[in-house]
Amino acid sequence: MENKGLKILDCTLRDGGLTNASRFSIETVRAIYGACCAAGLDYVELGYRNSKKFDNPDDFGPWRFCEEALLQDVVADQNKGHTKISLMQDAHRASSNDILPRDESVVDLIRIASYVRDLDKAVNLSKHIKSMGYECSINIMAISTEPPQDLISALHKIQSETQVDMVYIVDSYGALYPNEVTELLKLFREKVKDKCIGVHFHNSQQLAFANSLESMNNGADIVDGTLFGLGRGSGNCPTELLLNYIKSQSYNIEPLLEVIQSEILPTRDHIHWGYHIPYMLLGSQNVHPKEAMDWMQGEQRDNLLAFYNKIKKS
Amino acid sequence: MENKGLKILDCTLRDGGLTNASRFSIETVRAIYGACCAAGLDYVELGYRNSKKFDNPDDFGPWRFCEEALLQDVVADQNKGHTKISLMQDAHRASSNDILPRDESVVDLIRIASYVRDLDKAVNLSKHIKSMGYECSINIMAISTEPPQDLISALHKIQSETQVDMVYIVDSYGALYPNEVTELLKLFREKVKDKCIGVHFHNSQQLAFANSLESMNNGADIVDGTLFGLGRGSGNCPTELLLNYIKSQSYNIEPLLEVIQSEILPTRDHIHWGYHIPYMLLGSQNVHPKEAMDWMQGEQRDNLLAFYNKIKKS
Repeated sequence: MENKGLKILDCTLRDGGLTNASRFSIETVRAIYGACCAAGLDYVELGYRNSKKFDNPDDFGPWRFCEEALLQDVVADQNKGHTKISLMQDAHRASSNDILPRDESVVDLIRIASYVRDLDKAVNLSKHIKSMGYECSINIMAISTEPPQDLISALHKIQSETQVDMVYIVDSYGALYPNEVTELLKLFREKVKDKCIGVHFHNSQQLAFANSLESMNNGADIVDGTLFGLGRGSGNCPTELLLNYIKSQSYNIEPLLEVIQSEILPTRDHIHWGYHIPYMLLGSQNVHPKEAMDWMQGEQRDNLLAFYNKIKKS
Repeated sequence: MENKGLKILDCTLRDGGLTNASRFSIETVRAIYGACCAAGLDYVELGYRNSKKFDNPDDFGPWRFCEEALLQDVVADQNKGHTKISLMQDAHRASSNDILPRDESVVDLIRIASYVRDLDKAVNLSKHIKSMGYECSINIMAISTEPPQDLISALHKIQSETQVDMVYIVDSYGALYPNEVTELLKLFREKVKDKCIGVHFHNSQQLAFANSLESMNNGADIVDGTLFGLGRGSGNCPTELLLNYIKSQSYNIEPLLEVIQSEILPTRDHIHWGYHIPYMLLGSQNVHPKEAMDWMQGEQRDNLLAFYNKIKKS
């Protein structure tokens, strides 16, 4: 397809960070950042900026907090091209104190991950983020579990009470089918005016790329991916598939292939992600993959029938 | 979705046989056959019945030829339920001498795999197969490479000159996008009357299940899968995803999970399949995966940039 203003955001370091408690080496982060810039991606997300009040620094690596000095060290003298830097804050784990004014930061976009139940926190946080000069997004998590009326109320609140630039459909459970994605995009387009609509899919049922295609064909403005799909459980929509599909002169796949080769393929020795039956079963039941992720850590991981019986009962 | 007469065919032993030259143990074949019957699948394909004149028996295991006595040994005293048995013949590697009258065989359906250029052979073979009493399908291979006029001529020939029960769309290269699948189904439905339309997808771009969904929503009658997606290169649409999606009382996923666990997961030690960059790149270029399959056998397999440059030049 032709790229008609569609944007790609790579969140390998943020979402992939859920597989290793955000413990990437700075060399890996520099390489991925540099590759995303060289590929001409529109945004690259370097991690979370959650509060140390809520996330214990003993439990996480530095990309859970993304302190400004660290980010400066990543960016340093790299050629960033037109690629913007994004961070994520969890609405229920963030503090507005952790944000500098934009002109003192390398960050361009801050995305707030929020369940509908935490939307008041997200709205307040977004006001602070916008007042500090950043682009801002509210990403509605686990959207497949939200009753339509709650979702409509949430969109109304975002539209009427915030100045955010983007609102995201986040299929946290990998539960959505393409026809449901189309319906959600229609609803978002109807309820959210003059804001970009973003999409973020997980691959529990091998539908992350297909749902991204469906979204691009139905008016999404920005699409998330991770390199080689790195992400918890079944992983995410692969960024290289998105870029390879959007035949735009402004993108170049070669830096992505190079960094997948140097930084992502070697992690397969100690991080496991991708399609597997436990993730598929929970995704199709519209349930968070946590139970499957725990199961896959155990010695019974290949006992598929035992897992099936376990979740059937619960 | 509700199952409105939709049928599932599992071809793990046939298409998966392309990963190991059809060298499965008889215990594995019995287990997979039994599991497909117990799961209530509509068809299970046990292998090829190609001619030993064209395929050298020294190069292949027994499931490349599926001699009748061997099939009898598989079926033996197993409870087959309503599951029918299928074989495949390659139009350019088959001999009509190799088919017994149906009442002397355990086989129900014979599918002819044919490129459009071999369609005359397929048509002749189909006449013999029908005259022997079998259900018969013509499966149009590499359909993504066929110019529309050639495809229309082929469908006209099948419609006017054969009595086959099914005609298949086969995306051999994993090149098709869902909107292209929809267009092909419209064309098939228009040109092929009173025959079932089948679909068979490969996973080069992680679209095999999505394309199957798109097909089911656009009038396909029968859908192929393989257990855990086992198949050459990136593999196929996973049968368990199809069955898990079609919430029909007549299917039971448990026997499939059990046999994936006992027969398919262990093969991952020596057979590699699933999404990888070389398959993705060739799929998106509408090219046969052979070059990627060869590449993945070599020591340079993880040198993604070298593969990219190799195919870019050629």
